[in-house]
Formats: sequence, C-alpha cells, structure tokens
Amino acid sequence: MYQYTTQIRVRYAETDQMGVVYYGNYAQYFEVGRVETIRSLGMSYKALEDKGVMLPVVEMNIKYLRPAQYDDLLNIQSTIKELPDKHIIQFHQDIYNEAGKMITSGVVRLYFLDKENRKRVDIPKELHEKLAVFFK
Amino acid sequence: MYQYTTQIRVRYAETDQMGVVYYGNYAQYFEVGRVETIRSLGMSYKALEDKGVMLPVVEMNIKYLRPAQYDDLLNIQSTIKELPDKHIIQFHQDIYNEAGKMITSGVVRLYFLDKENRKRVDIPKELHEKLAVFFK
Amino acid sequence: MYQYTTQIRVRYAETDQMGVVYYGNYAQYFEVGRVETIRSLGMSYKALEDKGVMLPVVEMNIKYLRPAQYDDLLNIQSTIKELPDKHIIQFHQDIYNEAGKMITSGVVRLYFLDKENRKRVDIPKELHEKLAVFFK
Amino acid sequence: MYQYTTQIRVRYAETDQMGVVYYGNYAQYFEVGRVETIRSLGMSYKALEDKGVMLPVVEMNIKYLRPAQYDDLLNIQSTIKELPDKHIIQFHQDIYNEAGKMITSGVVRLYFLDKENRKRVDIPKELHEKLAVFFK
Repeated sequence: MYQYTTQIRVRYAETDQMGVVYYGNYAQYFEVGRVETIRSLGMSYKALEDKGVMLPVVEMNIKYLRPAQYDDLLNIQSTIKELPDKHIIQFHQDIYNEAGKMITSGVVRLYFLDKENRKRVDIPKELHEKLAVFFK
Repeated sequence: MYQYTTQIRVRYAETDQMGVVYYGNYAQYFEVGRVETIRSLGMSYKALEDKGVMLPVVEMNIKYLRPAQYDDLLNIQSTIKELPDKHIIQFHQDIYNEAGKMITSGVVRLYFLDKENRKRVDIPKELHEKLAVFFK
Repeated sequence: MYQYTTQIRVRYAETDQMGVVYYGNYAQYFEVGRVETIRSLGMSYKALEDKGVMLPVVEMNIKYLRPAQYDDLLNIQSTIKELPDKHIIQFHQDIYNEAGKMITSGVVRLYFLDKENRKRVDIPKELHEKLAVFFK
Repeated sequence: MYQYTTQIRVRYAETDQMGVVYYGNYAQYFEVGRVETIRSLGMSYKALEDKGVMLPVVEMNIKYLRPAQYDDLLNIQSTIKELPDKHIIQFHQDIYNEAGKMITSGVVRLYFLDKENRKRVDIPKELHEKLAVFFK
C-alpha cells in the first residue's frame, strides 16, 4: 500500500452557521489529499492533465464522525490499498484533528479518462511504476 | 414513502476546469433538495433550527454517473423511503439533467441533534406527523 | 439603461459561523444576476462562450451594508447604465432582502475576450443590438 | 505599516470552466491572508472571536490583473498601512504568482463588532499594541 498525509487549515469560508465545517467541503480536503499524495510520488496531477489524462471522481462514500472547527489544523491521510492496473484508482481518505481524533473517513474512486474523448484509459505507465514499488 | 423534486440551475462558480460541475458541489445540490423537501411538507428547516434542532449529515454515499454542465437545469429528486421515528433520517437523492438522464445518485443520512448540547434527539413531533401521512 | 432583477435563496453552504452569508459568496450571487440579465434579453452567456467569447471580471467593488441570513430570498438587481460599444461592460448590482432593504451594493466590470487567444474583442453584435433598444 | 505574506496553492475546486481561478474565490484567499497576518503578530482571529469580537468585511475593492491557474503557488501579501484606532481596519492585499507577477490587487475594509449585539467596538487593546510597534 502507499500512504501519504498532508495538512490543511480550516478557512472561515468553509464553516457554516452550525459553527463547524460544512459537510460538502470535505470533498475539497480529500482532493487536496489526493493531489499531494500524487506529488509525494514525484509526479503532479496537473502534469497528468496537461498530458491528456484526467481523473474524475465516480464514487465517494464518506462518514462524518466528529465536527471540524474554524482554524483547526487537519491531517488528511490518503491511502492507496491496491495497485491500480486498469482505469480505476481508489483512495481511502481519513481526516484527523490536532487531538488525533478521526473526524471524517471516506473512500473515493476515480477513473482515468482520456481528456479529449472522455473514454477510460489505463493508469499512466509512469504513475503505475512509481506506485508499484510500494506493492511488492 | 415521500418524494419531492426541486430544480437548480448550474452556476459558473460550480464548474471546474474539466468544464463540468465539481464533484464536491453536489453536496450543496443535495442540501437544497432536502431543504425544499421539508418546505414542501409545510415546514422549514430554518424554523427547526430556530427551535433548537439541527440536522447534520453523518454519512453520504454518492455515485457520479454523468457530468453536469454550466447552465444546465437539474432536477433534484429527494425520497424518504422509511418513516423516521428516532434520531435518524435518510434521503435518497437522485439528480437528473434536462434530457431526463440520471447524473448523480446519492444516499444521505442525518441525525436530529439538540442544538445546545449536540446530543441526539428524536425527530420533532410535527415533522413526524406531516411525514406519517405518506407512510400508511 | 437596462435593468433586470432575479431571485436566489440563500443556501446553508453559503453561511459561515457568524450565522450570515460569507462575504465571498456575493460574487456568485452577482454572477447569477448577470447571467439572468443576459438571458432576459433573449440571449445566453453559455451560448456566447460556445461561440468563442468569454467575459471575465476585471474589477469588482462591493459594499456590505447588512447581513443576509440562511434561507433568505434575495432580489439581485442588475443594471447596465451605459451601452457598451467596445470590450467593456459594467454592471451595477444591488441585492435586497425580503424586507426591501439593500444588503449589498456592487459594481462589476468585465471584458469581452476571445476565448482562444484571450485578447479583447468588441461586444458581440447581437448583444449590442439587443441592449441598444434600451438606450435610445 | 505592517506587512505579512502567506502562501496558498490553488485547489482544483477553485477553478472554473475558463480554466482559471473563479473570480469569487479571491475573497477566500484574502481571508487566509488576513488571518495569517494576525497570527504573525502572535494573536489569532479565532481567539478574538472567542473573546466576543468579530470582524466582518464592510467593503472590498478588487482588481483582476492576470488569471491564476490550478496548482499555482500564490503569495498573498497583506499590508496594514494605517494603525487602526477606532472600529475600522483596512488591509491592502496583493496576490503574486510564482513568476512574481501581480495577479490580483484588493483593498478590504472591516469593522470590529461586538459578537453579541453586533455593535461597533474599538480595536481590541492587545491587537492595537502589537500593531503599534510597527507604526512608530
């Protein structure tokens, strides 16, 4: 498996009138987690797109366990448990607050698509190679 | 069961550079769907909160089937399949585009909480009564 | 001059922990106001973009006079005071709450750009003609 | 004067279908810039609010000079040019891309308000003292 943790600080804009992070904003936090996970492998999601491969989300399952508050420093832990070999990649994404408590836990499934015709393509070879090292 | 459909038009702000609605924004569309479903019963979510009951999301499972585009008029269909009698309410939420194609399908589970102490409470009696009519 | 008013209802996602609409979200409301103003003329901003003209904002000045609350129905009044003839169009945008009080007042300036080379172009002829009727 | 620069990386969610950062999202970047400026003084905006003082924006003027792109690392430079002594504080906020080009330039004016009655109050003494050092 491959795991990477990145940090974000909750913005005022991301709270709602319950005084906690709006439930819809965790999708953004997960996105940041995935992008930084790819960067940690020495690649960039931006570069993938520039080369013609995009990675839309096809499914997200998310559990909200505890609220996050304004100005909290959150740890976003992203885990790839299975080496992708076709057009699917799946991230397990858990978010922890500063006290180490899990606040949100999700699974996000994405497809590799050709940017032009929006058809499924296999995971780019370079990304597959970088990941494969961790699945031996 | 109880079902209600409301409409939203996709805003420019809600698209991303893939040229489609950003996956995280569907949570807002679902929220609008639930709020209008409650209003269709002759109540208001705002009034519930003002009376001390809030309704945070504890779980969301969402499938992205087709993209939605800028300026699309979307139908958000919200269905309550089981009459809630304790602290849980669950919405099945499907979004359709103008061609009648399903673009997103989700299930959202929420808890009724006391706004002050954030403990679980049973569904407010008035809301239960309004819904019960549809579950005979 | 040309003036058009459209309505939006404040979403939960748009509030922050002050219990009011987050100041950054008014830009979205203004966008909706402009898009519906163009639609009221029998055109569509989406169609303009599809034809290769885009309309980015180059300046926004906005005064926050009163807060807007969750679930408020807001009137967004958009006014074009001068007939655009070159690459600039300017909207005066005022938002009123249900009590008729002005809550936000802004001026937004946009440029017509060629979508491909991102150079300034004159206002599309059809839009100019539709607007000209109101400036005689 | 007092000046502080902080960095943010553009999220995918913040782009729109023009392929650049949506104009409304700069308000969030400015907010992050102000919050980090206050933190750099050894205080926290969150603590201010917890003590009963809030700081809503009453005016924002913003010029969009160049687009920012997905994944760009932006420098948000926030400057307080005048020592606030009553209920008003004003930030000049300029955003630069990695090439050092200014992409957005804004002025944001905020009021110190009592959180309970939402009346204007003078700048908290501690914040005034921390800032005063830089205005001698």
